[in-house]
Amino acid sequence: MTVLRMSSLFLRTLREDPADAEVPSHRLLVRAGYIRRVSPGIYTWLPLGLRVLRNVERIVREEMDQISQELLFPALLPREPFEATGRWVEYGDNIFRLKDRKDGDYLLGPTHEELFTLAVKDMFSSYKDLPVSLYQIQTKYRDEARPRAGLLRGREFVMKDSYSFDIDEAGLAKSYDAHRDAYIKIFDRLGFHYVIVQAMAGAMGGSKSEEFLATAENGEDTYVRCEDCGYAANVEAVRVPAPAPVAADVLAGMPPAQVIDTPGTPTIESLVDFLNSAHPRVDRPWAAGDTLKNVVLMLSYPDGRREPLVVGVPGDREVDEKRLAAQVEPAVAVPFTDSEFAAYPGLVRGYIGPQALGADPERASATGIRYLTDPRVSEGTAWVTGANLNGKHVLGLVAGRDFSSDGTIEAAEVKVGDPCPSCGQGEGLQAARGIEMGHIFQLGTKYAQALDLKVLDESGKLVTVVMGSYGVGVSRAVACVAEGNHDEFGLCWPREISPADVHIVATGKDEEVFVAAETLARELADEGLDVVYDDRRGVSPGVKFKDSELIGVPTIVVVGRGLADGKVEIKDRRSGERREVAVGQALAEVCREVRG
Amino acid sequence: MTVLRMSSLFLRTLREDPADAEVPSHRLLVRAGYIRRVSPGIYTWLPLGLRVLRNVERIVREEMDQISQELLFPALLPREPFEATGRWVEYGDNIFRLKDRKDGDYLLGPTHEELFTLAVKDMFSSYKDLPVSLYQIQTKYRDEARPRAGLLRGREFVMKDSYSFDIDEAGLAKSYDAHRDAYIKIFDRLGFHYVIVQAMAGAMGGSKSEEFLATAENGEDTYVRCEDCGYAANVEAVRVPAPAPVAADVLAGMPPAQVIDTPGTPTIESLVDFLNSAHPRVDRPWAAGDTLKNVVLMLSYPDGRREPLVVGVPGDREVDEKRLAAQVEPAVAVPFTDSEFAAYPGLVRGYIGPQALGADPERASATGIRYLTDPRVSEGTAWVTGANLNGKHVLGLVAGRDFSSDGTIEAAEVKVGDPCPSCGQGEGLQAARGIEMGHIFQLGTKYAQALDLKVLDESGKLVTVVMGSYGVGVSRAVACVAEGNHDEFGLCWPREISPADVHIVATGKDEEVFVAAETLARELADEGLDVVYDDRRGVSPGVKFKDSELIGVPTIVVVGRGLADGKVEIKDRRSGERREVAVGQALAEVCREVRG
Repeated sequence: MTVLRMSSLFLRTLREDPADAEVPSHRLLVRAGYIRRVSPGIYTWLPLGLRVLRNVERIVREEMDQISQELLFPALLPREPFEATGRWVEYGDNIFRLKDRKDGDYLLGPTHEELFTLAVKDMFSSYKDLPVSLYQIQTKYRDEARPRAGLLRGREFVMKDSYSFDIDEAGLAKSYDAHRDAYIKIFDRLGFHYVIVQAMAGAMGGSKSEEFLATAENGEDTYVRCEDCGYAANVEAVRVPAPAPVAADVLAGMPPAQVIDTPGTPTIESLVDFLNSAHPRVDRPWAAGDTLKNVVLMLSYPDGRREPLVVGVPGDREVDEKRLAAQVEPAVAVPFTDSEFAAYPGLVRGYIGPQALGADPERASATGIRYLTDPRVSEGTAWVTGANLNGKHVLGLVAGRDFSSDGTIEAAEVKVGDPCPSCGQGEGLQAARGIEMGHIFQLGTKYAQALDLKVLDESGKLVTVVMGSYGVGVSRAVACVAEGNHDEFGLCWPREISPADVHIVATGKDEEVFVAAETLARELADEGLDVVYDDRRGVSPGVKFKDSELIGVPTIVVVGRGLADGKVEIKDRRSGERREVAVGQALAEVCREVRG
Repeated sequence: MTVLRMSSLFLRTLREDPADAEVPSHRLLVRAGYIRRVSPGIYTWLPLGLRVLRNVERIVREEMDQISQELLFPALLPREPFEATGRWVEYGDNIFRLKDRKDGDYLLGPTHEELFTLAVKDMFSSYKDLPVSLYQIQTKYRDEARPRAGLLRGREFVMKDSYSFDIDEAGLAKSYDAHRDAYIKIFDRLGFHYVIVQAMAGAMGGSKSEEFLATAENGEDTYVRCEDCGYAANVEAVRVPAPAPVAADVLAGMPPAQVIDTPGTPTIESLVDFLNSAHPRVDRPWAAGDTLKNVVLMLSYPDGRREPLVVGVPGDREVDEKRLAAQVEPAVAVPFTDSEFAAYPGLVRGYIGPQALGADPERASATGIRYLTDPRVSEGTAWVTGANLNGKHVLGLVAGRDFSSDGTIEAAEVKVGDPCPSCGQGEGLQAARGIEMGHIFQLGTKYAQALDLKVLDESGKLVTVVMGSYGVGVSRAVACVAEGNHDEFGLCWPREISPADVHIVATGKDEEVFVAAETLARELADEGLDVVYDDRRGVSPGVKFKDSELIGVPTIVVVGRGLADGKVEIKDRRSGERREVAVGQALAEVCREVRG
């Protein structure tokens, strides 16, 4: 195929790490001359980087072509479809908006649900046209608050996004499985460790959602797993197993609630200490987990609406911001201000109890504020909590007897050792970190409804199309492969991803060396291999070796001093293994090595 | 390779032309299901269209890889580099500007001179690094005032742009020639008629500039050509041959200028009539070309500055807006308003003569307004023109004796039959129309100077790098190929561009037909061909034939009634030629036809 000669290749390796690089992939991709920053989160793909990007695209395309049809939407999109689905507003600051010369509103597409939905609506009209699955590999834009980690969180990036369109949920399940299988093939080929975790299904429609996370110590996403049963879930998606509800007679037979003075107990810890000294319990001491903490929040919606919410969680857990955010979106939870507290005199700060909370009109509460509780606050559980009176708490307040909530919310932090929601066995949940590389998602009818995508079914009735949504971070995958394939010296590309098959290093000043190296380079190219050939004159062998290790092509051939004895060296970049072969055997040996 | 089955292909052909389609390529690409409009000048590439786009990209890439290195810049670009070159302002309304969440200014790249220049500055520093040539195939954006003609003038479009970097002009000339040769190969492969025309070199640096125009009756660009010598030029680039200047003694001996009363001569025509009746000439009658018309304009610069300009042209020619625009950019010429006339009392409307004009401080004029004249107004030519007095003209005003200008300007219209600037022979210039498909341009040092791109030369001195700029409209080429390859029934793709090699049409209800067609489709795919297979049941043969002609795959195979006699029909889409072959021979025959 091609010989890339280092003497003319548009490449400069750097000895120093770039100042802004936090993670290995960012550091190495910049130092080895694969990418270059233009602006925060916006990168140029230099020749070697572009070759890697194209290899990832090719792998994604080859697998997607088995189950889907490729097309290509524009990146510059008009406002109207996003207005129809509410996302023009919902996206808030996270998208780039702009105006054309006629003052028309546009955005740079962060994702293309609307466009895919409208395309199918435009072209198809019957159940006979379905199922159909469409995908694109395309440049996308997000106005990230904190672009970081090079390609891992950029503002301009390449994604593969696809959507399936089915007549019913059974069809969606099939399309979903087909994508899941394709994703497994893609990620197996990309060459990094990954785990498939349960993820949040959206607020509307759809049910199943999974993420493909590359396992990475410095990944942005936290997930939990159970080593006993293999359960793995995004922290946002963990469903806390609720205790079984108790029978009505048991509930009635529990000790009555009792209001007590609790002077000097501003914190959970001080309250627990006070209880253990003033109201000791026979069977076991009071613990933070016996208390019910009620956290007051304000939900701010994209349309400007604000709504107060109180979240009740056991006192030994904080409210997890990400879990809460996933539950309340598109609203954002912000702190309750002093003036807002003033507007709700029923909220006695420091002593808020469930009896004053709840939005259910049949059960008028002092505040009328919506109250959602952790699933652990199940019927029959007894709690120490605020008495809605200054300096007073209540003991033995029983859920389902003395109070109820407006529903449950999965917002409490997940802790290492928590029981596995799937098997409930063994060590419980363990925490790990990863990078989101793919997401498959049973969207349901959300977009089809908003944009009126209906087809005629067999009986001639209009039915709403059921959609699935599937994404792969293509440029992010380049970083992920680098994260999973490097050592202290540089990158170690998997063969399918590498910018070249072989890196030939010619050392010394001997003209014969360069003649032999050039000949080998051409012969390898004629065999269909891509070759990086370090043909630079006057550059020391040490610099050339370092560059070859930094660049990370899997097979390195050194043509140098050994040539006098008719030998060249073949080195495996990853293992460091070297062996000498006769120069006449080099072509065959390298081909064998490359082709496995 | 692939079998695209029409029963599931994301494609709907349209019987009707889209309402907004003005040109055949737009009409046919939409009707045949290649593209779909999202917004004015913004299109989705449907599966067949994307295949065609990729084929054009492949051809461009294959030829560019011979002389240049591919990389990829972002589309979302920060303001700063464009500020440094002045283009942030110069672009006016023609680019999309936007702000990020931190109020930073960005634009969507309409072209990438700044980025290429900065990339080379970032990476290279010595003459040893040069020459280098870099290119990308990338999505670009322009906020066109009138997006039109489908892909021909879009707001989001794909371009190949490349830049060469050399140490001196001689290097640039070589790089330019290499690109010119590559472009000839590219356009020869794309399969439409084109012509290489001389184009405007920019205001600064650089010298040579040529455009590759696809010849097209409804092209937006007008060019002229000489059938005698082969000269061809963009109208903006035509250089009018100036008459040889006359000797000083001849000049002095010419009859003196004479002011005459010219009542009732508001137009050139009425002035000529008046002269022929009141001041008849012996040798030949007065004609419009004997008069010198002085057109008053206001130049408006991107920075808001306004400067008046008078353009003097022979009275038989209008000022050509495009030629004028090319000469005065980045300023824009706008009409002179009444209040501006009032500010220059030296301008006697309808009777403006060169004596009152000119900005040269050594030759104080009544108005001080810059005065540029057509090259035909050369030293020793005598003119009838305004006398700067109401109702009076002057006869025999001699350029170089009685007046001079601040320079020449190529702004007069070019007329069919004008002498060829190159050979001056034969029929003179003829007009034709085309579509700009490529542009090669010796940029010179404009961007390198503005962005301080210097390298050390052999003697260790910093020298400014000399650049060339080379573009191909990739998405536009798809439309251009369609413009040049269609008939009344639809598209007729050249083989290298076609979305598939063969289009198999299965007709009738006979199951055997579908079995035979499916077998042939698979066998062809196994042979490495791309196949569109019309496997739709219950669609009439007429509709299928029409669709196959509209879609325009070069070879069409009909499997239908003839199958009973063991025959299938092979049809050449372009010539319409049909022949029957034995079904057992179909695979070999089609392969032979496709592979030529």
